[in-house]
Amino acid sequence: MTMPLVIALDAMGGDHGPGIALPGAAASLLRHPDLSLLIFGDERVIKPLLDQNPSVAAKSELIHTDVAVRMDARPSQALREGRRVSGMWLALEAVRDGRADVMVSSGNTGALMAMAKFCLKTLPDIDRPSIAAIWPTVASECIVLDVGANVGANASQLTNSALMGAAMARALFGFERPSVGLLNIGVEEIKGLDEVKHAHVWLRECNLPMNYIGFIEGDQIGHDVADVVVTEGFSGNIALKTAEGTAKQIAAYLRAAMNRSMLSRLGAFLAQDAFQILKEKMDPRRMNGGVFLGLDGIVIKSHGGTDAMGFASAIDLGYDMARSGLVSSIKEDLEGVRRASAEVLSRTG
Amino acid sequence: MTMPLVIALDAMGGDHGPGIALPGAAASLLRHPDLSLLIFGDERVIKPLLDQNPSVAAKSELIHTDVAVRMDARPSQALREGRRVSGMWLALEAVRDGRADVMVSSGNTGALMAMAKFCLKTLPDIDRPSIAAIWPTVASECIVLDVGANVGANASQLTNSALMGAAMARALFGFERPSVGLLNIGVEEIKGLDEVKHAHVWLRECNLPMNYIGFIEGDQIGHDVADVVVTEGFSGNIALKTAEGTAKQIAAYLRAAMNRSMLSRLGAFLAQDAFQILKEKMDPRRMNGGVFLGLDGIVIKSHGGTDAMGFASAIDLGYDMARSGLVSSIKEDLEGVRRASAEVLSRTG
Repeated sequence: MTMPLVIALDAMGGDHGPGIALPGAAASLLRHPDLSLLIFGDERVIKPLLDQNPSVAAKSELIHTDVAVRMDARPSQALREGRRVSGMWLALEAVRDGRADVMVSSGNTGALMAMAKFCLKTLPDIDRPSIAAIWPTVASECIVLDVGANVGANASQLTNSALMGAAMARALFGFERPSVGLLNIGVEEIKGLDEVKHAHVWLRECNLPMNYIGFIEGDQIGHDVADVVVTEGFSGNIALKTAEGTAKQIAAYLRAAMNRSMLSRLGAFLAQDAFQILKEKMDPRRMNGGVFLGLDGIVIKSHGGTDAMGFASAIDLGYDMARSGLVSSIKEDLEGVRRASAEVLSRTG
Repeated sequence: MTMPLVIALDAMGGDHGPGIALPGAAASLLRHPDLSLLIFGDERVIKPLLDQNPSVAAKSELIHTDVAVRMDARPSQALREGRRVSGMWLALEAVRDGRADVMVSSGNTGALMAMAKFCLKTLPDIDRPSIAAIWPTVASECIVLDVGANVGANASQLTNSALMGAAMARALFGFERPSVGLLNIGVEEIKGLDEVKHAHVWLRECNLPMNYIGFIEGDQIGHDVADVVVTEGFSGNIALKTAEGTAKQIAAYLRAAMNRSMLSRLGAFLAQDAFQILKEKMDPRRMNGGVFLGLDGIVIKSHGGTDAMGFASAIDLGYDMARSGLVSSIKEDLEGVRRASAEVLSRTG
């Protein structure tokens, strides 16, 4: 029998708080009956919702706190006011103390990252955790990181991101040696940043547990060229948001085109099953959940504006990451890199 | 009667050379009968094509050279081997010497930028030209720059890009005060690069000939939030390529969904006019042509892999830019900024 897996839920975050977190947990419990929950938040709001979701009530423990981190709080302010008392902090603490396997929150990203670093600490050799997103591709999906935790990255940070992304791909997709690409630009004159070029040499030289395929460009991200795409947080965030915006834009074109004439409306009606599949394929809720990588514990950030179905995806993702032993896998790989880089240094002088 | 406008054509560039450049010129001439051409390239290849395109032959002068810049040449190598002798250089020289109003090439981007800087020189206060792309939006289109000429940019370079992009928007769209946004990321903790933050203050403070609307995020580019979107070349190139890749990805989803059943195929057949409109709307050839901004002359870079229709769009774009007096407009605006910044300095310091 598998051990039960415990999710620490910061139930008060996001635009809709426990109103989506609890139905989301109910949906995820249907898929993962071996799950149990520690729910942190205001019992006056959460108790009635537990009564409405008896499957969640049966599998969870409610820990009351009336301190919630505001969505617009600055990280420093959130730390000052929410440390040791807010639901966000207490849920992280449950992971730190081994009472939970993963923490899920749809709260303020900056505050969550600051608290997670403070509470869980970063892994050896990691000074700045990354946020990894799951990106739909033509044939399946890939992992893109960093999508906004840090602006700029040096070669060693990019290499660590590659390593952590590969560990996540092993956990999520089950590939032994995931393919990893480094995002760069294709203009002949310059071929990208020095940091990116140095990371490229590093990733090629060290014998890391991945299939490093070299530089890839923005138009290849969604086209199954690499399982993991590595970049720093500014360009990664812009790539992610641009892809989201482009998808919405094309959906708007498509709606307008299909509404243009009687005939096109009839065609759209007949093809409605096909459009439904397309809609599901493009549904951002399916891919909801950013994974904070580089911490001594697993933290999943759900989109603040998502609904119960999206929140359930974030819990599912946390479940998969915890079940696959993501953190210990990353720890091992970092240790491997330390050995490899010592070897390279001793070879090169 | 309007003065004829002269386009200097580097006919040997791109994947297909004069085989697409000349039919492209013929298509553009249909729309702009006041156009004439200086065509630079190998007469052994071009002469037979002129015989096949008599409308082009009637409006053009052929200047023979058998030196062509290779698509894979490094900029330094292209300069060494192609300066003063290649079609690319000679076409730029025609603009420099006032024999042509604009130069169009589908050659090697890095080589073209290096030669253009060397031959045409940059405008006062501009040390690094940008490449501006036209980006389709839900309702119309916008301008995004820099899409890959330079990696990284300081606040002053971003401000100059904003100014040049606004001048281009005035030329292309005819708006007196185009709206300009600065691309940034939305994570609460950091809110982007220092350079971006400094440019933000600068653009807000100086009374520039634009409607500066502040930061925008990647998902807003295609949604008519700003007429001009400013960023540095690494993230700009990644945004552009990511949008292209996402559009292709969704087209692949759509094709697969529509082919799924008899009913969906019938629906797609009935809605074929609608799909045709969608296809045209998403056709990258319509938006072909990057404008090099910041040079003392107009240079249009056509995509190397485009066809005659795409090349014609690049010529059309060059025509519009030259007709609207883009370079003198940018010169005036730069002079205005010099005055404004002197004023800000005297106020603050």
